[in-house]
Amino acid sequence: MDIKIFRPTLLVDEYKCKKNISMMADKAKRNNLIFRPHFKTHHSVEIGRWFREAGIDKITVSSMDMATYFAQDGWNDITVAFPVNWLELDKINALSESINLNVLVESIETIDFLTQNLKNEIGVFIKIDTGYHRTGVQSEDEFIIEKLILELQSSGLLIFKGFLVHNGHTYKAKSIKEIEEIHLASLTQLAKLKSNYNKSSSPIIISIGDTPSASLFDNFDGADEIRPGNFIFYDLTQVQLGSCQYRDISVVMACPVVAKHSKRNEIVIYGGGVHFSKESLSIIGNKNIFGLPVQIKNDSWSAPIPDCYLASISQEHGIIKGSNSFINSVNIGDLIIILPIHSCMTADLQNIYLNSRGGIIKNHRS
Amino acid sequence: MDIKIFRPTLLVDEYKCKKNISMMADKAKRNNLIFRPHFKTHHSVEIGRWFREAGIDKITVSSMDMATYFAQDGWNDITVAFPVNWLELDKINALSESINLNVLVESIETIDFLTQNLKNEIGVFIKIDTGYHRTGVQSEDEFIIEKLILELQSSGLLIFKGFLVHNGHTYKAKSIKEIEEIHLASLTQLAKLKSNYNKSSSPIIISIGDTPSASLFDNFDGADEIRPGNFIFYDLTQVQLGSCQYRDISVVMACPVVAKHSKRNEIVIYGGGVHFSKESLSIIGNKNIFGLPVQIKNDSWSAPIPDCYLASISQEHGIIKGSNSFINSVNIGDLIIILPIHSCMTADLQNIYLNSRGGIIKNHRS
Repeated sequence: MDIKIFRPTLLVDEYKCKKNISMMADKAKRNNLIFRPHFKTHHSVEIGRWFREAGIDKITVSSMDMATYFAQDGWNDITVAFPVNWLELDKINALSESINLNVLVESIETIDFLTQNLKNEIGVFIKIDTGYHRTGVQSEDEFIIEKLILELQSSGLLIFKGFLVHNGHTYKAKSIKEIEEIHLASLTQLAKLKSNYNKSSSPIIISIGDTPSASLFDNFDGADEIRPGNFIFYDLTQVQLGSCQYRDISVVMACPVVAKHSKRNEIVIYGGGVHFSKESLSIIGNKNIFGLPVQIKNDSWSAPIPDCYLASISQEHGIIKGSNSFINSVNIGDLIIILPIHSCMTADLQNIYLNSRGGIIKNHRS
Repeated sequence: MDIKIFRPTLLVDEYKCKKNISMMADKAKRNNLIFRPHFKTHHSVEIGRWFREAGIDKITVSSMDMATYFAQDGWNDITVAFPVNWLELDKINALSESINLNVLVESIETIDFLTQNLKNEIGVFIKIDTGYHRTGVQSEDEFIIEKLILELQSSGLLIFKGFLVHNGHTYKAKSIKEIEEIHLASLTQLAKLKSNYNKSSSPIIISIGDTPSASLFDNFDGADEIRPGNFIFYDLTQVQLGSCQYRDISVVMACPVVAKHSKRNEIVIYGGGVHFSKESLSIIGNKNIFGLPVQIKNDSWSAPIPDCYLASISQEHGIIKGSNSFINSVNIGDLIIILPIHSCMTADLQNIYLNSRGGIIKNHRS
C-alpha cells in the first residue's frame, strides 16, 4: 500500500466496493427489481459515481441535506427515506424544482402540510411498518392507509407512488432463518396491500430496504424495488448476521500504535469513539468489541487476526487486546488495520476516505 | 428563543458555559492550581475565547490536529494529553517552533524517537496510571519511571515537566464516595512520585484531569494542575455521577418532530446516532436511554420532562417515549429539546453550534 497515513483513517477498497455493487445490481436485475441503493453508507459523490458507472440512476438518501448534496452531482431521481421534516420545506421546494424527488409520509397532517405548501410535484411513498415498529403505518391499519391514499389523490402536487418499508428488525435476528421469516412475512403483508390498492391508474411500487434481506435471499416476490445501502462497505455486524463474509468488507480503519502494555497484552491506538463511533458488537463470547484487527495483504486485507480485538474505546484512544505473540510483533509507530462494527457510522465520522489502491476519496464532510 | 432551526442542532447556553468556566477557574485559583482546561469537549475557537476572557492562557487538547487548530487562534501553551503519535512528527516539529508544546510519553522508545527527530524544545509529561489502566506507566513501576526520567534528562530537547494522570475510572464509579476514594488514592500515589523525584532543578508538576473529581472535591493536595474538559457543557453522565445538577448542563440538542405514534406513546424525531453519537446511559431503572427531553424556558431550558426519554436511536431517527399527555401535547413540525448523554461526543458530530442567545458558534468542522 503506497499511501501515507498519519492519523485514524478509513481505507476503502475500490475493487471490493465495485464487486459488492455489481453483485447487488445483478441480483436486482435477475429479480426484475428497481435498484435504488441507499447512499447514507458512503455519503460520497465520488463513490456515488461508481454506482453510476454500473448503470444505476436512482438513489435513496436519509435527509434533505444528503439529497441536496447528491443532486449537486447530477443525481436526479432521489427518494428521501425519512418521514418529511416540515422545517425543511424550503429545501423540498428547491430540490423538487430540478429533480424527481420522492418523500415518505405516514400521517394526514404531513400530507395536508405538503398540499398547502408545495410548489412542485413530488412522488410520495406511504411508510409501512411490517414489524420493526420504529416508524410508519402498521400494515394492518387499512383504515388509515386508505385515508392517506384518498388524501394523496386529492392533493394535487403529491403523486402516490406506493408503499415503502424498512425491516430494521432483521438486525436483531439471531439466525438467517429468523431474518428470512421477517423478510417473507413482510413481503406477504406488502403483497396484500398491493393487491388491495393497485386499482389506481399507475401501478403501485413496493419498495423494501434492509441489507441483510437483500444480501441473503433471492426471493423478492411482491417487491418492485430494493434499497440496501450498507452492502457497498459491509462490516462486522453484517458478518455476524450472515449477510457477508469477512472478505466482502471493503473498508477498514488504519490507526497508529502509540503505546504498548505487554504485561497485559494490550496496545494503545490513536483511534477512538470520534473515529469509529461507539457501536459495539457481542461477537466473542459475551464480550463487547469495537472492531477486529486484520493484516494488510497486497492492496487489501486478511481475515481477522486470531484472538485479537478492539476491546474498548474512549474519545480518541482505543485499546487492542491480543495474543502475547501478536502484541510482541507490534511496535509503537506501526499502523493497525481494523474492521469496523458499523461501517455507516464509522464512515460518517471521517473528513475524507483513502482509496486503498491510491488517492483520496472525498465525502460530504470534505 | 429567536433562532431558526431546521435540522438536529446543538444549542449552547453561553451564560451557563461562562458560569461553568468561572466556577472551575475560581476553584483552581482557590487551590493554587494551574488551570489547563481540556478543549476536546467544545473543540471550538469561539468557545475557547470565552476561556481567554476569563484569564485562562494554558490549554489541553487530545490530538496534534486539535493543537494546531487552537494554536492558529493564538493559544501558545498547549499540552497534548495523548501518547505521542510518531507518525505526526512533522506536526510536532512545526508547532513547537512557534508555541510552548507539551506532550506525553510513557516509553523509552518514544523518548528515543523524539530525541532523534525533534527540531525544537518541547515539554514532556510522563503519563502515569494510578488505576484506570487505559494507558501510562503504573505509579508503582518506579524502575521504569526512573529510567524514563534519566532518558529525558539526557535527551537535549525534551524538558521533563512532571507527571500527568487521567482517572477515567471515576466514570465507572457507583457513588461520590467511590469517586473520592479514586481521587484521593491517585493523589497519594502522585505525591509519593513527586517527593521521590522532585530533586531536579525545576519543580515537578503533578497534573490531574477528570471532570468528576475536579467538580466534586475541594481537596487537591499534591496536585499542581487540573485539566477538566467536560465541565463547560456537562451532560447526563455527569448528573448521574453527581458532578453537576441538571441546571448546569449548558448544551441541548434541538430536533424536529417528524411523526407521532400515540398508540404506543412515541414520537419520532429527526435526530439519530450521527447527531447524538450512540452513547447511552442506564438512568431509569435498567433502561438504556440516549437523552432526556426538556422544555425551552426563556433563553434556556427546564429540568427533564417527567417520564419522558429518548428511548432508541438509529442513524438518523430517534424514538422518544413519554406520558400520554406529553405525547399528545407535541405536534409534527415541533422541535424537541434534549439533554445529551455525553456532550463531548455529541458536540464532535456537529458542523456548527447555535448560541441559545442568538448567533452561530463555529467549531473545528465549520
